[in-house]
Amino acid sequence: MPAANSGSAASQTVHVPLGDRSYDISIGTGNLVDVGRWVTSLRSVTHAVVISDANVAKHYQQRVEEAIAAEGVRVTSLVVPAGEPSKSVSTAQSLWEAALADRVDRKSVVVALGGGVVGDLAGFIAATMTRGLDFFQIPTSLLAQVDSSVGGKVGINLPSAKNIVGAFWQPKGVLIDTAVLETLPRREYLSGLAEVVKYGVTLDAEFFSYLEANVQPMLDRDPAVLQKIVARSCELKAQVVAEDETETTGLRAILNYGHTYCHALETVAGYGEYLHGEAVSVGMLCASRLGEKLGVFDAESTQRQFKLLSALELPVATPKLDERAILSVMQRDKKVEHGKLRFIVPHRIGKVVLTPDVPSDLAMDAWREGCEA
Amino acid sequence: MPAANSGSAASQTVHVPLGDRSYDISIGTGNLVDVGRWVTSLRSVTHAVVISDANVAKHYQQRVEEAIAAEGVRVTSLVVPAGEPSKSVSTAQSLWEAALADRVDRKSVVVALGGGVVGDLAGFIAATMTRGLDFFQIPTSLLAQVDSSVGGKVGINLPSAKNIVGAFWQPKGVLIDTAVLETLPRREYLSGLAEVVKYGVTLDAEFFSYLEANVQPMLDRDPAVLQKIVARSCELKAQVVAEDETETTGLRAILNYGHTYCHALETVAGYGEYLHGEAVSVGMLCASRLGEKLGVFDAESTQRQFKLLSALELPVATPKLDERAILSVMQRDKKVEHGKLRFIVPHRIGKVVLTPDVPSDLAMDAWREGCEA
Repeated sequence: MPAANSGSAASQTVHVPLGDRSYDISIGTGNLVDVGRWVTSLRSVTHAVVISDANVAKHYQQRVEEAIAAEGVRVTSLVVPAGEPSKSVSTAQSLWEAALADRVDRKSVVVALGGGVVGDLAGFIAATMTRGLDFFQIPTSLLAQVDSSVGGKVGINLPSAKNIVGAFWQPKGVLIDTAVLETLPRREYLSGLAEVVKYGVTLDAEFFSYLEANVQPMLDRDPAVLQKIVARSCELKAQVVAEDETETTGLRAILNYGHTYCHALETVAGYGEYLHGEAVSVGMLCASRLGEKLGVFDAESTQRQFKLLSALELPVATPKLDERAILSVMQRDKKVEHGKLRFIVPHRIGKVVLTPDVPSDLAMDAWREGCEA
Repeated sequence: MPAANSGSAASQTVHVPLGDRSYDISIGTGNLVDVGRWVTSLRSVTHAVVISDANVAKHYQQRVEEAIAAEGVRVTSLVVPAGEPSKSVSTAQSLWEAALADRVDRKSVVVALGGGVVGDLAGFIAATMTRGLDFFQIPTSLLAQVDSSVGGKVGINLPSAKNIVGAFWQPKGVLIDTAVLETLPRREYLSGLAEVVKYGVTLDAEFFSYLEANVQPMLDRDPAVLQKIVARSCELKAQVVAEDETETTGLRAILNYGHTYCHALETVAGYGEYLHGEAVSVGMLCASRLGEKLGVFDAESTQRQFKLLSALELPVATPKLDERAILSVMQRDKKVEHGKLRFIVPHRIGKVVLTPDVPSDLAMDAWREGCEA
C-alpha cells in the first residue's frame, strides 16, 4: 500500500496500464503532505528537481520541497513565471542549464508541481535531460488533474505553433490532492469542469448523469464530489490512452471532442480571451449541433449539455467573430486530413465518433446557430 | 529484399534487434544512389526533412535529395554549419522553426546526412518534432558509420556539458555507403579506425587479428575491407546495444573502453586539439597499461594494440599535460560513481571488464608511462 494514501481516508488509485510504462495516479484530499514518502516509495531517489511556477510556488512549493527533503532527498528548486509563455525554448534552456549547474545526473528525478504549463514544460525537461529522467507529476489545476496529467504528452511551443516540440514521456506516478483546488481562481476552476463534462459526453453517459445531479456540490468544490469527478475522468482518459498511447490509431482523437471549434475560437478571439475549458464548452455545443445536422444526434442531448454547462457557469454561445477566419483555422487544424474537415461528432451522450469529410457549410451552420443574440 | 541493396553487388545488412524498435543497417559500396527507394521501402513517405552540414552537403546533398524526390517525396533541405558548435539549443531551435515553416507534420520523416554531429542533432530534432518523427540515418564519416549510427543516442550540447540534452531515439533504418568515405579527409578517416580497433579489443579477438592482417588495405580504403570492418563493427555494437538499449545494466559501458582517459585528454588538451578517435587511441593504450598494473592484462597484448594503432598512423603517446588536471577531469567524469575511479579494463584481446574502485595513483601511472619522450 503506497504511503501516499495515508494522508486521506478516502484516497484512491487509478492505474494507467501502459506495459512497462504503467503508472498509478494517487487521488486524495490533503495527501500532498505525503509527497516525500510517495516519491520515495516509487523508486529510490537522492536528488529531485522540483519545477513549479510563481503562482503555485507561493502556496505549495515549500511544503512539497520540505516533504521531499525530509526523506533525505537533495532538492533543486526551479520556479518559472506563470503562464503559457514559459513553454518556450528559452525557458527550457534555462531549466536545463540550472539543473545541470546544480549537478543533475542520470539518477535524478523531475517533479512537476503546477498546472498544464508546468506539467508540459517539466515533462519535456524530464524527457530530454541526460536522455531521459524519471518524472513525477503533482497537477494543481483541475484541468491538469483531469487531462494533462494522464497520457504522457509533454512539450513546449514555438512562436508559430503550440506543443509542436515535445515527446511522449510517461510519468512514474501522479499525485493528485484535490484540496489544492481550493486556492484555484474560480474562473479557472470552472474552466476545468468543461473537460470533466467532455468525459461524460464522449465516454460515459452514467457519469454525465452524475454531473447533472451534482452541479451545486461541484460549484462548491465539495471534496467527495471532487474526488469522484477527478478519479472518474482519469479512469476514462486512462482507458483511451492505454489503447492508443502515441495517438496512432485515431482512438485517442475522440478526446478532442469540441476541440476543433475550440481551437478556432481560441485563435480567432485571440489567445487569453477564453480559458481553454471555456472554449471547449462552446466547442462541444457546436459539435453537438453539427451532430444534429448530420442526423446522428438528437436536439434533446444537445440541450442537456447546454443546461449542464450553463449551470456550471461556462460560456455556451459562440461570439460574433469573422466566420471566414474561423473556417480558415479549422481547415488548417492538424485534425484536418487531405483538406477535408474532420470532427469528433456525438451520436449519443457517452458515444462520439471520429467523422472525416464533414462539409464545411454544415460545420459553419453549427457554429452560426450558437451565436449570441 | 530492400531496394537499397540493388546499388551494390556486395551489399549486406546488419539487423539491430530492439523489439518494436528494431531496424536494419544496409551497408554497401555505391548504394547511396538507392536512397530514395530505400527510404520508401521502409515506410510510405510524402515529406522528408533532410538535415546535413555544409561540408557533406557540398558532396552529397543534391544527389540524396534528388533520389528521394524521384520517389514522389516532397523534400525540405536544411543545412547547418559543419562542426560541434551546431549541436546547440539555438541550432535546434532554428531547425524546428524551419521544418515547421515548411509544413512538417506528424507523417514527415527526418533524414540525417552527415557525421556524428549531424546524426546527433538531426536525431534530436526527429525525437522532439511533433513528439517524435521517424528517423533515417545516412552516416558519412567512418566514426558515425561504426559508432554513432548504432544505438539511438541523439542529443545536443549545453555550453558546460556535451550531449547532456537528448533522447534514446532509434532510427527506422541506416544506410551506409562506404564509397562516401573517399571524400573524407585522411586524418578524420584514420581517427574513425581507432573506434574499429576498439571493437576488436573489447569484443572480438578474431576481428582484431583481421585488422592486424589488413593494415594496408585499410589505409588504402579498400572497398571490400571497408565493408567488412564497418559491418563487423556495427554487428558488435548492435549486440551490445540490444542487451542494454538505454545504458542501464552497465553492459553498454564497455563500449567506453579508452574513453575515460580520452575524455580527460580531449578536455585538458582543449577540444579540437585531438580528433575523437585520436584521443581514443591514446586512451586505449593507457587503459591497457592500467590492465597490466592491475595484473589482469599482459604486456604483449598492449604491444599488439600499440603496433596496430601506430601502423594506422594514430597517436600512441600521451602528451605532456598537467597531470592534476587530467586526474581532476577523470574524477568528475560521468563514469565515476561515489568518487571512485571507474575504468573499462582489458583482460585479454576480445574481453574487457567494467572495473570500479581503481586507485587513482595506478590510473595516473598508466597515463604517465605512455608519455612521449
